[in-house]
Amino acid sequence: MQLREDLLRYLNEDIPFGDVTSRAVIPDRRCAAYITGKENAIISGLAEAEALCNHCDITFTRKVSEGAEIRPGTVIAELAGTAAAILMVERTMLNLMSRMSGIATATRRAVRAAEAANPAVRIAGTRKTAPGLRLCDKKALITGGADPHRMSLSDMILIKDNHLALVPLEDAVKKARAYSRYVNVEVEVETASDALTAARAGADIILLDNMLPRDVQETLDILTENNLREQVIIEVSGNITPDTLESYAVLGIDTISMGRLTHTVKNIDLSLEIMPAMNTVKIF
Amino acid sequence: MQLREDLLRYLNEDIPFGDVTSRAVIPDRRCAAYITGKENAIISGLAEAEALCNHCDITFTRKVSEGAEIRPGTVIAELAGTAAAILMVERTMLNLMSRMSGIATATRRAVRAAEAANPAVRIAGTRKTAPGLRLCDKKALITGGADPHRMSLSDMILIKDNHLALVPLEDAVKKARAYSRYVNVEVEVETASDALTAARAGADIILLDNMLPRDVQETLDILTENNLREQVIIEVSGNITPDTLESYAVLGIDTISMGRLTHTVKNIDLSLEIMPAMNTVKIF
Amino acid sequence: MQLREDLLRYLNEDIPFGDVTSRAVIPDRRCAAYITGKENAIISGLAEAEALCNHCDITFTRKVSEGAEIRPGTVIAELAGTAAAILMVERTMLNLMSRMSGIATATRRAVRAAEAANPAVRIAGTRKTAPGLRLCDKKALITGGADPHRMSLSDMILIKDNHLALVPLEDAVKKARAYSRYVNVEVEVETASDALTAARAGADIILLDNMLPRDVQETLDILTENNLREQVIIEVSGNITPDTLESYAVLGIDTISMGRLTHTVKNIDLSLEIMPAMNTVKIF
Amino acid sequence: MQLREDLLRYLNEDIPFGDVTSRAVIPDRRCAAYITGKENAIISGLAEAEALCNHCDITFTRKVSEGAEIRPGTVIAELAGTAAAILMVERTMLNLMSRMSGIATATRRAVRAAEAANPAVRIAGTRKTAPGLRLCDKKALITGGADPHRMSLSDMILIKDNHLALVPLEDAVKKARAYSRYVNVEVEVETASDALTAARAGADIILLDNMLPRDVQETLDILTENNLREQVIIEVSGNITPDTLESYAVLGIDTISMGRLTHTVKNIDLSLEIMPAMNTVKIF
Amino acid sequence: MQLREDLLRYLNEDIPFGDVTSRAVIPDRRCAAYITGKENAIISGLAEAEALCNHCDITFTRKVSEGAEIRPGTVIAELAGTAAAILMVERTMLNLMSRMSGIATATRRAVRAAEAANPAVRIAGTRKTAPGLRLCDKKALITGGADPHRMSLSDMILIKDNHLALVPLEDAVKKARAYSRYVNVEVEVETASDALTAARAGADIILLDNMLPRDVQETLDILTENNLREQVIIEVSGNITPDTLESYAVLGIDTISMGRLTHTVKNIDLSLEIMPAMNTVKIF
Amino acid sequence: MQLREDLLRYLNEDIPFGDVTSRAVIPDRRCAAYITGKENAIISGLAEAEALCNHCDITFTRKVSEGAEIRPGTVIAELAGTAAAILMVERTMLNLMSRMSGIATATRRAVRAAEAANPAVRIAGTRKTAPGLRLCDKKALITGGADPHRMSLSDMILIKDNHLALVPLEDAVKKARAYSRYVNVEVEVETASDALTAARAGADIILLDNMLPRDVQETLDILTENNLREQVIIEVSGNITPDTLESYAVLGIDTISMGRLTHTVKNIDLSLEIMPAMNTVKIF
Repeated sequence: MQLREDLLRYLNEDIPFGDVTSRAVIPDRRCAAYITGKENAIISGLAEAEALCNHCDITFTRKVSEGAEIRPGTVIAELAGTAAAILMVERTMLNLMSRMSGIATATRRAVRAAEAANPAVRIAGTRKTAPGLRLCDKKALITGGADPHRMSLSDMILIKDNHLALVPLEDAVKKARAYSRYVNVEVEVETASDALTAARAGADIILLDNMLPRDVQETLDILTENNLREQVIIEVSGNITPDTLESYAVLGIDTISMGRLTHTVKNIDLSLEIMPAMNTVKIF
Repeated sequence: MQLREDLLRYLNEDIPFGDVTSRAVIPDRRCAAYITGKENAIISGLAEAEALCNHCDITFTRKVSEGAEIRPGTVIAELAGTAAAILMVERTMLNLMSRMSGIATATRRAVRAAEAANPAVRIAGTRKTAPGLRLCDKKALITGGADPHRMSLSDMILIKDNHLALVPLEDAVKKARAYSRYVNVEVEVETASDALTAARAGADIILLDNMLPRDVQETLDILTENNLREQVIIEVSGNITPDTLESYAVLGIDTISMGRLTHTVKNIDLSLEIMPAMNTVKIF
Repeated sequence: MQLREDLLRYLNEDIPFGDVTSRAVIPDRRCAAYITGKENAIISGLAEAEALCNHCDITFTRKVSEGAEIRPGTVIAELAGTAAAILMVERTMLNLMSRMSGIATATRRAVRAAEAANPAVRIAGTRKTAPGLRLCDKKALITGGADPHRMSLSDMILIKDNHLALVPLEDAVKKARAYSRYVNVEVEVETASDALTAARAGADIILLDNMLPRDVQETLDILTENNLREQVIIEVSGNITPDTLESYAVLGIDTISMGRLTHTVKNIDLSLEIMPAMNTVKIF
Repeated sequence: MQLREDLLRYLNEDIPFGDVTSRAVIPDRRCAAYITGKENAIISGLAEAEALCNHCDITFTRKVSEGAEIRPGTVIAELAGTAAAILMVERTMLNLMSRMSGIATATRRAVRAAEAANPAVRIAGTRKTAPGLRLCDKKALITGGADPHRMSLSDMILIKDNHLALVPLEDAVKKARAYSRYVNVEVEVETASDALTAARAGADIILLDNMLPRDVQETLDILTENNLREQVIIEVSGNITPDTLESYAVLGIDTISMGRLTHTVKNIDLSLEIMPAMNTVKIF
Repeated sequence: MQLREDLLRYLNEDIPFGDVTSRAVIPDRRCAAYITGKENAIISGLAEAEALCNHCDITFTRKVSEGAEIRPGTVIAELAGTAAAILMVERTMLNLMSRMSGIATATRRAVRAAEAANPAVRIAGTRKTAPGLRLCDKKALITGGADPHRMSLSDMILIKDNHLALVPLEDAVKKARAYSRYVNVEVEVETASDALTAARAGADIILLDNMLPRDVQETLDILTENNLREQVIIEVSGNITPDTLESYAVLGIDTISMGRLTHTVKNIDLSLEIMPAMNTVKIF
Repeated sequence: MQLREDLLRYLNEDIPFGDVTSRAVIPDRRCAAYITGKENAIISGLAEAEALCNHCDITFTRKVSEGAEIRPGTVIAELAGTAAAILMVERTMLNLMSRMSGIATATRRAVRAAEAANPAVRIAGTRKTAPGLRLCDKKALITGGADPHRMSLSDMILIKDNHLALVPLEDAVKKARAYSRYVNVEVEVETASDALTAARAGADIILLDNMLPRDVQETLDILTENNLREQVIIEVSGNITPDTLESYAVLGIDTISMGRLTHTVKNIDLSLEIMPAMNTVKIF
């Protein structure tokens, strides 16, 4: 889960000097509220929403679980706390859950499409996340069923075209291999021949970037002929859309990574409604 | 501009323990690089990208200005620094500019559509921004030509349905009015009658939420009949899409606020390419 | 309320390496303590004091409410916790409450003086607060009955002499008006003629700076003659003291802003006394 | 000097979302500005003001030194930078310098009054500073000529009435003595007899709290009779005002500590004026 | 105790993107665990470990006290919480306690050796602590029985060879004396003659650096002859090892400061074992 | 390199309220200084030292490179800046370099001993680093020639005895395998039979914990017999000392991980000496 200090930073961003509307208008009393979904979606971000609420002394009761599939009108959670606290946390909480649910929903869709074509292939994320939201975005990918891929520049070696502009491919892979026995080495290539070089040099994972399906197939064939297919994981990437996904998934590849899952997010429409009067009580 | 400490937090998120690929593979040398656009877009985020580069001792030379309209292949900026520094900052910088440019591009499109229908109407943003990115998202809205609307819960009173579940409309507006002579008071209503009540009670701005164009028109007429139209700013909102935008803009309203400009962003595809060998020099 | 992290920063400032006196001298035991006032005052800062205590596992029981009027000897709150915790938080808590109560007390006095002269006029604060204490200082102003005025440079446009050294008045107001339909525009002027220009250009609020009462009156008359008085809020400012306050309040103005309420604060003398022995218990 | 991160926090407090006035109204150009004093004062806070300016790429040229005595109209510093930067930093910088100069001015006055009565006596500060401003407040005391006294609860043992409610005096001093050979031990007492006990137990410093001058004298006599006067530093404290200062200073004491020097500050009136037009240049 | 925010920083350092092993492998259930020692040691860091556990909603029950002497197999604490939480905090908690216990153990040994030779002499720490761990390292010194010496550059004047390269000894001591009546003045010297000068100039503490025992004795004799021995505290320092400790302790000095107690730490081997199955319960 | 904000935190820890000795004693002037080593060592931490100096406007000129082997008296770096700045940064900088050099020195020794026995075996670090110093400690390991192993709980799956108390071995490895195709899976075992199970279940790395050399050999033999040796990396660990290192290195294993390289560090003795008078200049 995103660190508590990050969640509070999101909240504080929305209230640098308090909530002036509540201060002027809202009486000091407790109330209940509901979060409901307004469209079909996979829900993500419940733990983060709960942590935000708890920080504001709001009871947060989950009515569905992380990863649940909801329909319009599904109640996602019930809240109880002071009206001022609920109204203060509302937008930050919904902004976060709407984004995470948007990512989880698009991911689940891609995962199902890929699995329908080929149960062995996995959908994976990338580092194309919103700045400051890496962990939330990655969590939503996991909730949607995707492989999160590397979290940052610190946890895996991925040699890309910009590295290869500076160091020859074979040399780069060998240096990478020598660095550590605990760090995987992935290489991004655009031709079958480079894929073969990378595999021979000892890459663990080969990323076939911006290749047409038939070029991917040819690369797989060449690796198989050279008895190298089993030794590497094959990832394809490069503007793969829901429309083209299947044509790649049917090939004998291992993962399809899709930047759009986190860089172009359609938020899920969620709403919070305060229950009025009767059951409210003065709290001071 | 986003505070330097926020920009660094975005960067640090991507390198909790350094860039392991550069550490293993990249020699210590200086190089040049270019950022280019790969689609038609309005560019936003140049100052933020420059600040990130400067923090890493990378010279950042703008080739276009904030708000410029680019086409595929346009060079946006030139960079010069160590290869390791450029590769370290690349993804964070592109993630930020791609998002901001995506917001600015969609905003500019909406602004033009609205102006074509009615030069007096302004497009406005909302608080439906990505958590932790409020200021960047708002800046991109401004770059795109929109009214940023309130920045946070601290700078304007906006009485919404959830407040009105707790306090009667007229009472709420009066309390809001009494709070401060420097803070604007906006009220969200769903009926012409509530709009009239809000205007009579002294609201500065009335937000007509989820109304059909004909209901908006009716509300405007009633306000005019009561000599209140001039005293209030009229904002319409509620799932207004590029398709329905014009039907609202032609009415005599003041602003149209659109959450989707920041909550459902299509990133602009930008790329960074390192220039190879010749002009590189050992730096240590 | 000031963010918890700010309150802890205030506390940590006083104990970079722990409380060496308690470490050396004080046994591990629980005790009770009382905070009392030593002079007539309006009390402010109770929520902040409570948050500080709660952070240190001290029970804080309010004996008066925020804004209460106290006399020498009034018990303001009762505390229960370990002696070490109470002694650790004592000075930070008292420093904050004493300042906030000092502001609230001076403010209440000014508010009453103004209201006695003219019930329609409000006392307002300024941005002349102690660095790092903006929100506490503004909260104390509100507790004292004042209008908090703008919180920061981000929430309202206020065109002052230094802006007008760079941009002509009318031009400045028009640019400001065009910026956003949600942000108020205030203009600081020193002559009736500039006030008229500002009002005509569409300013929402006009700040008459350093004018004598008769010049204020003349300005009001000119605005009235031009049918502009109703369209603007009139604020007066500039070294207004308790002695000169009334001479301005009697004029038909709207607000009087007073920097001295926060820039020259007379702290209220509060003391904390630990109740000795009998009821103390070993806690480890 | 206050840590750079603290100074930036003060600045950020005033611009959570940028300076909306400059954004709307001010052209991108460089200009010069002057800070002048408007009353007689001792100036403090120049290094802090300079650091704030430098952070905003403003050249800050001191025209007087830290601790200089100024008269109305004295130019304190010249600034050169973009208009937007100068206007952004103005209020934070002046708020800090005005407070620090206020403390330094009152301190210098007290120091002179004390020295006139008795050149051997020093004025000292206390921990009654504004929350978050301890270091600035203490620096201003030093600039004014005072002894800063302890900076926090971490750097000296000071046994006060609240400690003595929990531990007998002699026992407390002995425990304190045993704690460390590097930490001074001060004891606050209200009677000559307790002063004697404290001195005998090995206190380094004795604080005579809320005693009348004649009781202070009696205490000094008793210590002298017991050959203990030379072994302890004698501090007096407790609502000592400019009026009563001399009556204490003439006694053979060592220091007079005055909480009011930092808890009840009269800010010095400083102003910043931007030089208009001619010498300004477009910077973009 | 180290500030909660520092403790969390230590924890976050180990989980920038969560615990991937627990996420993949560990079911959501509660369990118990024990921390045991694997060698003879003095235990330190219990409060810090408890705070870390409490932050992760783990119950932490101390089975020994801070400063307790343990043998291999001694149970130090029992934990109860979710398996994921315990596994997440394990390494950070053990790394901290192992270091602090290592310092406390070596310190206790030195203290006993010194006391055996001379009950009046104290062992003291230095500022040679691990960066970011000053307070933990100093606390472990105290637990081990040492005098913590100064905490930082802010709490005592210590004039060393590098200062004396810039200012003559006598001049330096006099300036130091004049600075404040609350701050001790220590001077580092390497000859008996400088020690005499320092004492005469009014130093509170004299640090005999890198002297042989016979030179220390000679210095003490000279001070005694000059009736200055009683007025100063004598500290010896400079690569004093357990082997040479006694030869200094038997002299009539006051403290022996040993950098190695914190700069060259042998961690104590502690282990955490999770109790398996039976008593575990599903928690969601 | 450690983040600048972490380095500044180390520095600020040593000067919560400034350097009182410099404030009292040191004139405002520039000077030069040298850092020299006092024993044979491998130097690490130069970039961190340089960053600290640069923050304080001190020029830092390296005289040796990261990883250089020095002898007593070798000059490591030259500094030029104000005396106050150099004295302020001295201890923090030396504490960090001394620790990092201590780690690098012990690591280089272990690496050489291992390589002498078997050039194919690598020495690796662990997560037993000082809290808050993970990145510095890991960097020093790399400088010394070791494999850094995983940086945190976020970058590799390592199933240890505590996980196996909760989940059966085969089940755990399969879950780990299913989690991601980018994350390595390591399993800690104590018997040859468990090693075989782990390898069959698909572990990438097997950690043989606390086994005698002959048991390690037996395990390797069994894996070889089952044609699994080539598919896994074999790491041995568990209190391996310089004395026992060779007996493991000669076996056909891949890495030896040693906690003691970072948990029990012997600091390298470095000193900083200020060059006196002649070339110093007044700077204000």
